[in-house]
Amino acid sequence: MNGKMICRVLGLILLTLAALMLLPLLTGLLYGENVSNFLITIALSAALGFALTRIKPARSSFFAREGFMIVGLGWIAMSLIGALPFVLSGSIPSYIDAVFETVSGFTTTGASILTDFGVMGRADMFWRCFTHWVGGMGVLVFMMAVLPMGEDHSMHIMRAEVPGPTVGKLVPRTRRTASILYMIYIAMTLLETLLLLLGGMDLYDALVHSFATAGTGGFSSLPNSVGGFGSAYIELVIATFMLLFGVNFNLYFLLLIGRVRDALKNEELRWYAGIVAAAVLLITLGISGRYGFLTALRHAYFNVASIISTTGFGTEDFVLWPEFCKWVLILLMFTGACAGSTGGGLKISRVAILCKAAGVEIRTMVRPRSVTRVQLDGRRVADGTVRATLLFLMLYLFLLLLFSFLLSFDGYDIATTFTAALSCLSNIGPGMGLVGPTGNFAIFSAPSKLLLSLAMLIGRLEIYPILVLLTPRTWKN
Amino acid sequence: MNGKMICRVLGLILLTLAALMLLPLLTGLLYGENVSNFLITIALSAALGFALTRIKPARSSFFAREGFMIVGLGWIAMSLIGALPFVLSGSIPSYIDAVFETVSGFTTTGASILTDFGVMGRADMFWRCFTHWVGGMGVLVFMMAVLPMGEDHSMHIMRAEVPGPTVGKLVPRTRRTASILYMIYIAMTLLETLLLLLGGMDLYDALVHSFATAGTGGFSSLPNSVGGFGSAYIELVIATFMLLFGVNFNLYFLLLIGRVRDALKNEELRWYAGIVAAAVLLITLGISGRYGFLTALRHAYFNVASIISTTGFGTEDFVLWPEFCKWVLILLMFTGACAGSTGGGLKISRVAILCKAAGVEIRTMVRPRSVTRVQLDGRRVADGTVRATLLFLMLYLFLLLLFSFLLSFDGYDIATTFTAALSCLSNIGPGMGLVGPTGNFAIFSAPSKLLLSLAMLIGRLEIYPILVLLTPRTWKN
Repeated sequence: MNGKMICRVLGLILLTLAALMLLPLLTGLLYGENVSNFLITIALSAALGFALTRIKPARSSFFAREGFMIVGLGWIAMSLIGALPFVLSGSIPSYIDAVFETVSGFTTTGASILTDFGVMGRADMFWRCFTHWVGGMGVLVFMMAVLPMGEDHSMHIMRAEVPGPTVGKLVPRTRRTASILYMIYIAMTLLETLLLLLGGMDLYDALVHSFATAGTGGFSSLPNSVGGFGSAYIELVIATFMLLFGVNFNLYFLLLIGRVRDALKNEELRWYAGIVAAAVLLITLGISGRYGFLTALRHAYFNVASIISTTGFGTEDFVLWPEFCKWVLILLMFTGACAGSTGGGLKISRVAILCKAAGVEIRTMVRPRSVTRVQLDGRRVADGTVRATLLFLMLYLFLLLLFSFLLSFDGYDIATTFTAALSCLSNIGPGMGLVGPTGNFAIFSAPSKLLLSLAMLIGRLEIYPILVLLTPRTWKN
Repeated sequence: MNGKMICRVLGLILLTLAALMLLPLLTGLLYGENVSNFLITIALSAALGFALTRIKPARSSFFAREGFMIVGLGWIAMSLIGALPFVLSGSIPSYIDAVFETVSGFTTTGASILTDFGVMGRADMFWRCFTHWVGGMGVLVFMMAVLPMGEDHSMHIMRAEVPGPTVGKLVPRTRRTASILYMIYIAMTLLETLLLLLGGMDLYDALVHSFATAGTGGFSSLPNSVGGFGSAYIELVIATFMLLFGVNFNLYFLLLIGRVRDALKNEELRWYAGIVAAAVLLITLGISGRYGFLTALRHAYFNVASIISTTGFGTEDFVLWPEFCKWVLILLMFTGACAGSTGGGLKISRVAILCKAAGVEIRTMVRPRSVTRVQLDGRRVADGTVRATLLFLMLYLFLLLLFSFLLSFDGYDIATTFTAALSCLSNIGPGMGLVGPTGNFAIFSAPSKLLLSLAMLIGRLEIYPILVLLTPRTWKN
């Protein structure tokens, strides 16, 4: 194991974190707030980062294992340090609560323990929502885009940090790929900000909501989330952008280079569109008695977009909707959005591979001599990929049950316990029961909050980086 | 497709069903009840069976597909005809209710719509519990044991009907294997009956409870199940036999031929024992404040045995227990008992294969050059088996979500809906919420009862036979 190299990259991550915190610092200064909490944290993060980067590794090469470890440790370090401003300013007095909130931010979950929005200043709130934006595309991918790193390092890190069963390079060089992804990400964030400004939002609100949408996070500066604006236009813009940020970014790259037809032919995109349409239709039918057709459509569109993209913004309390509407949302919590997007969950391509593998199995039983293979986008999916996908799905569901069980010691009802675990593991935000859109994760005990933080990290990093850290074998040399 | 051969075997199944119904007929005569319902059903089943066996197939050969179809269609036919006595006698007036109860019986689920035990005569109640015994080991395996059939047919049928990822023949000839299995099954049922008689139960109750235990079904002749006897001895006997019927029958064969050490070395058995011990310990700790240590241990042992073996007998309403105790039981609902037993659920060997496959995956990530393989009982598990197991688990969970969603249109809460689907798919009986040990499946609408019947059949036949029937391609020649 190349421990020194790991330390060095961790140092770079902390330096990057310090740099990113300059933005909330600036915000605080603009609003004339006390920004000593950010000054202290930036100094600490920069000093620690600088010290770690002084470590000179003998070899600069590293492998998949080091990639997983860097990503796992990096995200944990970012969360532990990123939580400090909230504690130092007193806006979240408990460190465990602050860690929960920060993990929820970086992992783009959006589950919150914040009950009193009044005590949080502008700078802290900016940082809270900005963590979504940082975590959405990945801080390491950001680092790759701006810092010179070896090609082999970058790919191992990118594979470990970017969600989805397959990570492809858009262009031959990883660094260039990372830059292109961030360009698209920044451009779309700015476009949403602009559209929200046109809807009458002020710049601050427009920015923080765009950050939270872009990362498919879901933190809002308003206690009652996007519903608090009471504007159909704003809901439409945000819902549409939630869906757009749930699309594989590779497709935007295809659009950019003019391969529009290739982008639209993408099979995962078609599944995604089909699932969204079906879910909106079903829920609209289910709640139109309650709201009237048009308002029902509006709420259905927004909440389907919010859940399938795993953002978690809210307009209405869907816990009060008919049971089958809740189940539509629960099913969306499982599927999540597209691979290579900023969304969480299992990812639609994985679900598609599962469905196809099952179809092949049954066809083979019915006609043993007919040879059929799992195909996606017209190309055969390798047997190894199918096996790895099934294993990933199983591990995910296994962890879901394990976390539900561990969470049950807090004594909440089955629906609350199960959907809290599901929501954190899929990085969504709200669940059902007591953790619905109007509920709050503050109800959980400190050990449960740490458990849920672990679940969020496992979900965002797609299981393996954290499991690799938890495997004793990793630490033996 | 060899359609004529399928008809012929279906005919044999109906003749067997008619013969099996002679037992409740005899019971009714002994108790001086009106047995016209059984006479009519036996005549119908025998006539239909006789007509079907007159069909002479051109070829007698058939393949896996026909095996699946025979098992699927056979179980559906048995359920549809087996339900008639309840309707004809009026003890269950609605045919859909009667079909639900019969499917629940044959699939050894034990979920009941029966709310008024007073209206059901001795013969009907005997038949209700006897269906568990028939379904436990499988009516087709029974047929194989008593009727001469070709070797290749038998193996295809046995694979489709006997639960578990691998079905091995105990002895070279399938027919002999089937006989040995039934011998062990009958011997153990009689032993339990004897022990219950020694505990002061009358012969009728001892028999019907032994039938329901042997099949790991869970129907009881008492409205409040085994708890109604109020006897620690009876609970101890039944709990122990529930666990014993959850063990792979191959191990009893090994015991019979003196290979005691081989039987005890079985890895699935060790997982089973470990899981039971851990679950009993946890629940005892969780409820000892409520009942005191000894009574808590008694309830924990009985209910863990009842759920992990997927029997579903009850002594106490575990819906009132602490949340984490409920989650222990929910996790047991997923694992189920051992492959090759009469129990339902996913089977422990599948869960073991999953855990090991995940371990191998993570080890390979940490040390890419170390070659590790999934092993069970010291032998390597073929990659194909691992893939098939993962796919099976995924399909199971996918169907669980699908059935939960479809069931949600009835409007019951998430815990009720989810655990009703889980309980039926795993052939357990009780769930949580409104379908807990003191609840009843009568609350569901007629379409939901049919859906749950389908779920029970899918669960008992381990998915594929029913899915093969539902695949349009099966019916094209």
